[in-house]
Parts: sequence; C-alpha cells; structure tokens
Amino acid sequence: MEDLSLFLNRRTVRAYSDREVTTETIQELMEAASRTSTTGNMQLYSVVVTRKNETKEALAPLHFNQPVVKNAPVVLTFCADFNRFTSWCKLRNANPGYGNFQGFFTAALDALIAAQTFCVAAEARGLGICYIGTTTYNTKGIAKLLKLPNLVVPVTTITLGYPASLPDQVDRLPVSAIIHEEEYADYTTDELDTCYLNKELNAANQQFVKDNEKETLAQVFTDVRYPKAMFEKFSVEFMEAIQEQGYNF
Amino acid sequence: MEDLSLFLNRRTVRAYSDREVTTETIQELMEAASRTSTTGNMQLYSVVVTRKNETKEALAPLHFNQPVVKNAPVVLTFCADFNRFTSWCKLRNANPGYGNFQGFFTAALDALIAAQTFCVAAEARGLGICYIGTTTYNTKGIAKLLKLPNLVVPVTTITLGYPASLPDQVDRLPVSAIIHEEEYADYTTDELDTCYLNKELNAANQQFVKDNEKETLAQVFTDVRYPKAMFEKFSVEFMEAIQEQGYNF
Repeated sequence: MEDLSLFLNRRTVRAYSDREVTTETIQELMEAASRTSTTGNMQLYSVVVTRKNETKEALAPLHFNQPVVKNAPVVLTFCADFNRFTSWCKLRNANPGYGNFQGFFTAALDALIAAQTFCVAAEARGLGICYIGTTTYNTKGIAKLLKLPNLVVPVTTITLGYPASLPDQVDRLPVSAIIHEEEYADYTTDELDTCYLNKELNAANQQFVKDNEKETLAQVFTDVRYPKAMFEKFSVEFMEAIQEQGYNF
Repeated sequence: MEDLSLFLNRRTVRAYSDREVTTETIQELMEAASRTSTTGNMQLYSVVVTRKNETKEALAPLHFNQPVVKNAPVVLTFCADFNRFTSWCKLRNANPGYGNFQGFFTAALDALIAAQTFCVAAEARGLGICYIGTTTYNTKGIAKLLKLPNLVVPVTTITLGYPASLPDQVDRLPVSAIIHEEEYADYTTDELDTCYLNKELNAANQQFVKDNEKETLAQVFTDVRYPKAMFEKFSVEFMEAIQEQGYNF
C-alpha cells in the first residue's frame, strides 16, 4: 500500500456488473469502517442497507431518479445517529443531552468519516462506489421511508457494486490550491485562473458549457446544477428535517 | 490490500517520534485525498497545515490544551470552503448562492470525507493520526487564528506524525449494532445490553467509572465528558461561528 495507487487511481463507479455483493462482504467492509475514529469512541452512526428492488424504487425519486440508485446492487444510507447512544444512556441512569446542533454535527461527522472509510475499504476489495449527494435535499422523505427514529438523520448515501466498466478519471484541482501553510492565504485572480485552468480546458466540461448555452463553466454550476434558489430551498428543508428528527436549534 | 488489515489493525496515535513529516509527504497524501469524491466535483474544502511551534502554542488552548496538539509534528485543520469556488464563480460572471445552511453542510461533507481519506493514506504510509474533535467548540478562535475568510469554517483537526509507539486497540461496538437491513430497527433493551457489553466490561472503561465516582459508564459520558450544558453552549457558539463566516441560517 506504500505507493498510494489505490487512492490515486480511483474513480467513481456508476455502472455495476451482475456479481452479487454478499451480506458477508458488507459486514467485513463495515467491520473495517468501524475502526474509524469517532467522537469519544461513541460511534454515533448507523447504516441502512437497501437491497430490495421495491425499496430502491421508493428511494429513487427521493434522489431525483438518478439511475444509479436503481441500478446498483446495494444502496447504503449513512445516518448521523445519537439514538442508540441516548437509549443506552437512559437505560443506565444517565442524562443525555444531545438533541441540539452540536449533537447533530458530531454524529454527522462520525457518520461521514466512517462512510468514507467504508468506501476506501470497498475499493481496496475491487468494488466501486458512487456518493449520492441528494441525501440532504429530500431528507424528510428518506427518513420516513427508512423508518428512522428520533436523533437519526441520513447524511449521505453510497451505491455499491462490482464495476461493469471503469470510467475515465475526471479532473481535480492542483493540491497547491487546497493546502495553506500556517494560515489561509486568500486566492488572487491569477491563482484562481491557474487552479481552475484544467477544469475549464477539460473537453467534457467545455461540452457542458456548450450544451447548456452558457458563457462559462461556473455558470453551469450556478445556473443549472446548483442554483442559489435550490440551495436556499434545500437549506430550509434540511434544517426542518434535522429538527423533526429531534435536534433542536 | 485485499485483506483489509490496514483498516482492521489501526489505532489512534497520540505519541509521535522525532522523524520529520516532510512537505512532500503532506503533498503526496493530499494528492491521494484529493481523489475523494466531492459534491459535483467542486472540492469544497481546504486544509491549513500547522508546523510552527508558535502556531501550535496558539492553537493548543483552542483545543483545551490537549497535549497532542503541541506534541505532534504537524497539525492539519480541515475546513469547509465555499470561498474558493465562490470567488471563481464571481470571476466568471456567474452568480453563486452558497452562503446558507446547505452550502455549509455540503462543504463540511466534502472536507470531512477528504480528511478521512487523508488519514487512511497516512496510515498506509506508516504514519499515525489523531482526530481533535474540539474544532467545533472553539471555532471562532480557530477561524481567527488561521485567518479564515468568509465561507471557510474549520470542521475537524488531525494531528500527524510517525508513531513513537502503538497503543492497544480500544473497544468497538459489534457491526450488527450499526447495520440495519432495509429499514431502521430500533434497539430493544436486550439489544442495547448486548451491543454495549464489551464497552462496559472493558477494564479501562471500568476504571473511568471508578475514578469519576459514577454508577455507570454512560454517566461518565453524560456527566463528565459530554454533558448537556456543554453541548448546548457549543451548539450556540458553533452556529454563531458558521454564521459569522457567512453561512446564514
């Protein structure tokens, strides 16, 4: 593993073969993921495993019918979960106080970093994954479908399977754009031009600009993919969902 | 990597040797981490690298003087960062709208899963890491010290170095307690007893109960380590910090 090629060669996989992902495989990957650090070793997360076609059919519209949700052998919904820990505290004559914003974020952090370890472990085993970012958009619907109780909030979703084919790697920013030494050095115009250069020159990205009849790639993001009105709408709905699950803020 | 031993054998490392962690090593690990999936491939995160003793001395009290912050060769503060992307959008005649709760959480997700890939890559290279969970407590002070601009919020901190020694592995819940098939099955009293059994029988944990003069391990968490009043105080302060950094909700 010294050479980091597992990390450097990875790509998101959206097309899966028919090869079954067994329950034992999921358990082994989760065993690996469960060694991830968590806040105070509280392990404030759970994962709901979806295999049944009928549940995938019900999940799909909550993820804007992204085909990968129905096509993947397994869909995993990772949840911030202070329910299990809180229930244990109550059973042990202790007074838990985690139904607040810090409680939510702490559990979300635990869930997200465990999810990512799960993904790396899956890739180490030759599986492919795709993150489904829409989990924080239709959160109430997902919570209802998966019967999530108080203090359990879905924060990300992963589709999992053996790759049918490997797509090309997509662009990334140079790491020099991500690392700040000692303190944050805000970006000059020249630095922004440099760090987004490859992204803007990328043929697929240039095609997006053309297809959407935009002047710049940035406009594809702000006008088409992630517009302000959409982010504002899903801000309100995500906050409502978190509060309905018992985290008050 | 097929056998997942890297994942299964890991432990948090708080004692580091004198061996230097070079700038090249950090860049290579960040290169590996930068292949992590992010929302729309926007890469909404940055990392501030602390090596100077004076910065570590200034960071330490913001992390409640946990010794590992001063003792580690390198401290990495991972930040949710919509600043770089927003600046690029403005430069490209686009209208970004990410100063809201969804914007914050989206960038936090990107930062956290990239941080975790960084950790796994570091461990693959023989380094050791420790997560510092206090980043969401004194967030304002950390943002000020590291000169974080608008739309940049620190969400987690990692200490990094070559291990001086490997501690024993600590307890984990059985994975059966974490995985739910098709829908969330809430925990019965018997299930809670079973899933927390090893944690409660653990000698170090039993010593914590005795040292703190508590009846149960759960009370050590709720009365000493993570009391309700502390979570409520840091809920308010963390929300204020996020809003001061320009994410309004």
